[in-house]
Amino acid sequence: MTVKAVRALESAEVVAFFAKQGNPGNAHRTAFRHFRTDAVELPLLYPVTTEIEKDHDDYKGAIQGFYERSAESVAAHLEAGRTVAVLSEGDPLFYGSYMHLHVRLAHRFPTEVIPGVTAMSGCWSQTGLPITQGDDVLTVLPGTMEEAKLARKLGETEAAVIMKVGRNLPKIRRALAASGLLSRAVYVERGTMANTCSMPLSEKADDTAPYFSLVLVPGWEARP
Amino acid sequence: MTVKAVRALESAEVVAFFAKQGNPGNAHRTAFRHFRTDAVELPLLYPVTTEIEKDHDDYKGAIQGFYERSAESVAAHLEAGRTVAVLSEGDPLFYGSYMHLHVRLAHRFPTEVIPGVTAMSGCWSQTGLPITQGDDVLTVLPGTMEEAKLARKLGETEAAVIMKVGRNLPKIRRALAASGLLSRAVYVERGTMANTCSMPLSEKADDTAPYFSLVLVPGWEARP
Ligand SMILES: C[S@@+](CC[C@H](N)C(=O)[O-])C[C@H]1O[C@@H](n2cnc3c(N)ncnc32)[C@H](O)[C@@H]1O
Ligand SMILES: C[S@@+](CC[C@H](N)C(=O)[O-])C[C@H]1O[C@@H](n2cnc3c(N)ncnc32)[C@H](O)[C@@H]1O
Repeated sequence: MTVKAVRALESAEVVAFFAKQGNPGNAHRTAFRHFRTDAVELPLLYPVTTEIEKDHDDYKGAIQGFYERSAESVAAHLEAGRTVAVLSEGDPLFYGSYMHLHVRLAHRFPTEVIPGVTAMSGCWSQTGLPITQGDDVLTVLPGTMEEAKLARKLGETEAAVIMKVGRNLPKIRRALAASGLLSRAVYVERGTMANTCSMPLSEKADDTAPYFSLVLVPGWEARP
Repeated sequence: MTVKAVRALESAEVVAFFAKQGNPGNAHRTAFRHFRTDAVELPLLYPVTTEIEKDHDDYKGAIQGFYERSAESVAAHLEAGRTVAVLSEGDPLFYGSYMHLHVRLAHRFPTEVIPGVTAMSGCWSQTGLPITQGDDVLTVLPGTMEEAKLARKLGETEAAVIMKVGRNLPKIRRALAASGLLSRAVYVERGTMANTCSMPLSEKADDTAPYFSLVLVPGWEARP
């Protein structure tokens, strides 16, 4: 956490955060100690949509409605003159849920986005892997992408980060092998958390990966 | 700065930092208040190489020699049992100078890399621009790259960050225009610093850009 984020929390009357029913999540666990004792907690609970396909219109409708309602519950506090802090894992505008509130509220209320340390920075720091140097290109790829496109993108970059690993791991492995990068790939699970682990992806025996995992392909091939 | 970096500084007996003669730099300015009062400062002063072309063997030789000597001056303190903190602007392993010390010392001494907030996170947060969502690919491109390659890469990504702008700005503009992205590009100068400014690149009248500037091309085209 940054010093700036700690200060913002210490003065926030309301703390909002996206969460699943029964699990306030990592950001809450880390930030909780900095909440004001009289802070109002505003969990924004994802609707249960496991039965519906992500690409289905019903899913899109449900999730858009959820973001609308979430934004309105934050807006109600802001309209009452209260300061609201929204928690975020990593950086809020980098594949984060916060941006669904931002696009709905930032033009209506004074807003400050406090940048955060991304998961990828946490992971390459923990493993001590210089990711980019000099003229290296870094490509950040969601593991949800189509396999052929993933392999093609991997073949065209000096350094890469593959996010959203989870059950996409077998596909990611194949794409890395196809682009000749498998031997350089490092798998990191729960980076910077207490129960973290990491290893060369080629040495990982199974294909189980939690939500909080990513794959690094470090650049700087000319390193001394 | 992160809380973790502040804590590390508060206990460091020696603080090392890359700098130019006569200018301790931004990282020093920001971090200075957290140094121990008895901390030994170890500036690692870049050799003056302005007369030599970057691709010339003389330059490469001079800069490699400089990194070797810098690493040895840090090693001398570590061998004497002192704790050394190395300052870094943004994240140390993301196009940072720190990694030249890391590859020379991390296998010889216990080392912890503390991840930082990258310049790009600072810039997109300050301008409130969601950079990536869902399946977006983010490509980070050094503005030092060859023009045709830059244009091609820009044409193949949902979101982009162009680092190392400075005198590469005219080339960057042409590459953005060639790939049809000029209208979406945002220029940010001295992000998160006191004298920062930002604007759509198409509205920037001149081609002067300081070292601390970058260009953002936000993704998430389907934003509501
Ligand atoms: C919705 S994105 C959020 C990214 C976040 N806003 C950031 O700044 O990195 C979630 C993905 O980030 C990655 N991630 C988040 N935390 C992680 C961690 N501690 N270790 C490894 N990967 C992590 C995983 O790939 C996960 O699928
Ligand atoms: C050698 S790289 C260092 C990057 C740094 N380690 C990071 O984590 O972002 C220097 C480049 O970062 C970008 N940069 C650094 N600080 C910046 C700032 N405050 N505003 C805009 N760009 C910045 C510029 O493009 C500059 O040429």
